[in-house]
Amino acid sequence: MTLEAIRYRAGSLQILNQLLLPQETVFDEVRTVQDGYEAIKSMKVRGAPAIAIVGCLSLAVELRAGAGGNDPVTFIRESLCHLTSARPTAVNMGRAARELMEFAENESMEKNPEQLTESVIGWIEEMLERDVNDNKKIGNYGAQHILSGVPRDSVTILTHCNTGSLATAGYGTALGVVRSLHALGRLKRMYCTETRPYNQGARLTAYEAVAEGFPATLITDSMAALTMREKSITAVVVGADRVVANGDTANKIGTYQLAIAAKHHGIPFYVAAPSTSCDLSLESGRHIVIEERPAEELTSINGVPIAAPGIDVWNPAFDVTPHQLITGGIITELGVFLPSELQAALTGRLTAL
Amino acid sequence: MTLEAIRYRAGSLQILNQLLLPQETVFDEVRTVQDGYEAIKSMKVRGAPAIAIVGCLSLAVELRAGAGGNDPVTFIRESLCHLTSARPTAVNMGRAARELMEFAENESMEKNPEQLTESVIGWIEEMLERDVNDNKKIGNYGAQHILSGVPRDSVTILTHCNTGSLATAGYGTALGVVRSLHALGRLKRMYCTETRPYNQGARLTAYEAVAEGFPATLITDSMAALTMREKSITAVVVGADRVVANGDTANKIGTYQLAIAAKHHGIPFYVAAPSTSCDLSLESGRHIVIEERPAEELTSINGVPIAAPGIDVWNPAFDVTPHQLITGGIITELGVFLPSELQAALTGRLTAL
Repeated sequence: MTLEAIRYRAGSLQILNQLLLPQETVFDEVRTVQDGYEAIKSMKVRGAPAIAIVGCLSLAVELRAGAGGNDPVTFIRESLCHLTSARPTAVNMGRAARELMEFAENESMEKNPEQLTESVIGWIEEMLERDVNDNKKIGNYGAQHILSGVPRDSVTILTHCNTGSLATAGYGTALGVVRSLHALGRLKRMYCTETRPYNQGARLTAYEAVAEGFPATLITDSMAALTMREKSITAVVVGADRVVANGDTANKIGTYQLAIAAKHHGIPFYVAAPSTSCDLSLESGRHIVIEERPAEELTSINGVPIAAPGIDVWNPAFDVTPHQLITGGIITELGVFLPSELQAALTGRLTAL
Repeated sequence: MTLEAIRYRAGSLQILNQLLLPQETVFDEVRTVQDGYEAIKSMKVRGAPAIAIVGCLSLAVELRAGAGGNDPVTFIRESLCHLTSARPTAVNMGRAARELMEFAENESMEKNPEQLTESVIGWIEEMLERDVNDNKKIGNYGAQHILSGVPRDSVTILTHCNTGSLATAGYGTALGVVRSLHALGRLKRMYCTETRPYNQGARLTAYEAVAEGFPATLITDSMAALTMREKSITAVVVGADRVVANGDTANKIGTYQLAIAAKHHGIPFYVAAPSTSCDLSLESGRHIVIEERPAEELTSINGVPIAAPGIDVWNPAFDVTPHQLITGGIITELGVFLPSELQAALTGRLTAL
């Protein structure tokens, strides 16, 4: 079975409520833009790609139910504005809103309100389909690349954070690679880090692994190096918040440390990300500002204090892995590229390895 | 102020109840061997050196109150047997019991019960004093060695787990080095990892840092590499469960990963341990068996579930850091030695650097 965290059928949307995970599996109905806004704001859905998809789909569902009437453009504009304000730092929602608005305005020149509404719904449905298909391509390219090094064996993968159905439109990026390996019958085992301080690995990746029946083992972040030495890890595969022109990659805190440990053990280190996560406008990762988050994420869990009162805390949300440590490659929907090839590949001057 | 987790005055013993840390600071009276047994068994006191000291001191207190009467040797033997059974894997208690029993039996040949009792109490008090003094020497040797590389500056130290007053007879090993640097006015800041899965760093080291007024910052284990890159770490200093003949060191899980990250950043990596933690009977760390602990340590905190139900877990309690990665040296009460010098130093064939 494939875990479907976003259940969309024409006119109907249900999302897996991530606030209740991993203890309870509950799907919530999303009928309106306001439902979508609240789902994003309350973090029932998280992960930048998933937020954009759920936001846009909530608009499609309300449009299908007749919203917008004779002035769909105004309704669409106000809806997208509202949806973008729910989590302003999730860049994908902002980009989707700009692209969709441009599309809607162009369409409005030629079409009547009813036709326009249909076009916009179609655009959103295509966006969902394209995102899932891109992830499937990432999964397949990544799996083939990893397997090309071990022609007959099954493989053991170490991953970090959550990059699966729960963070994307579906299928996943790094976890999509694991999914493809499993579908090919070549996944011996996946190790996932718990990913402190927000525990996306323990809560979400472990949940997906159990739901999908992947052979999977949870470890603490500090056990990764020992796991590499003792458990014959074939490759480390992680996702990305942003990949810049030279291949430097911003991703969940702890990624940099994993990359160093992988290098020390001679294990290939891969970043899996759609080309939409690649930002060629930045030359190197030195220009990426590291977001710092509240101390409470470290000092309590579910409201229970777990650290000494009064201690100072540093809580950077992500780190930048220099391209030299991305030894396996960057896995995109266009193919797998070395960091040094990324720019040429994304601008069409190079085809897949 | 110095945090005194074990308060002993002739005839009286109080211990800081670690079960209530870091939220509450409560000292419990230990009047009898049975009190000592229960404090160890229930983990009010933990850390192999601290367990041995508290066990022996509980015996000294009960002896001072008149226990043993005309047959102190039998009382001492039965008490040590009982104390050793409280946490059989804590090797220091077993070793202390053997040494003390041998001493008591020798003394009994020449002395009357009253004199014997006094001798045994004296032996135990000396043990406490010696352990604390050894830790102070470790602290001072370590501080001097680290400062020798940076003649004028104050230093920033990264440490792991808890190796302070709460784990030893007093002062601490790796945290003793930090304490010495602070006393010299040369500690700019200490970073401590939370040390998943049992959170000794967040609960205990952070508690000691706040109590002592060290400038200190808590990070997750996964942030260590970024901290090394961004926060000008002068040295990494950790404790040891066991150091073997070639310098390979078994210590709390995560130590190996820290050592790899330190090497990558060119930061000296030190192990601080009394010579009693050095086991020259083992040639290399390959022979050390890695203890695995229950999954629940990862999947819940204070009884609150934090991971997906049904996920498989690997929970090794410690790892072995190869001597090649211990680039700063091994800090003992005899001086600071390179791993390759350890054996000669401990057998008296080499003096301190």
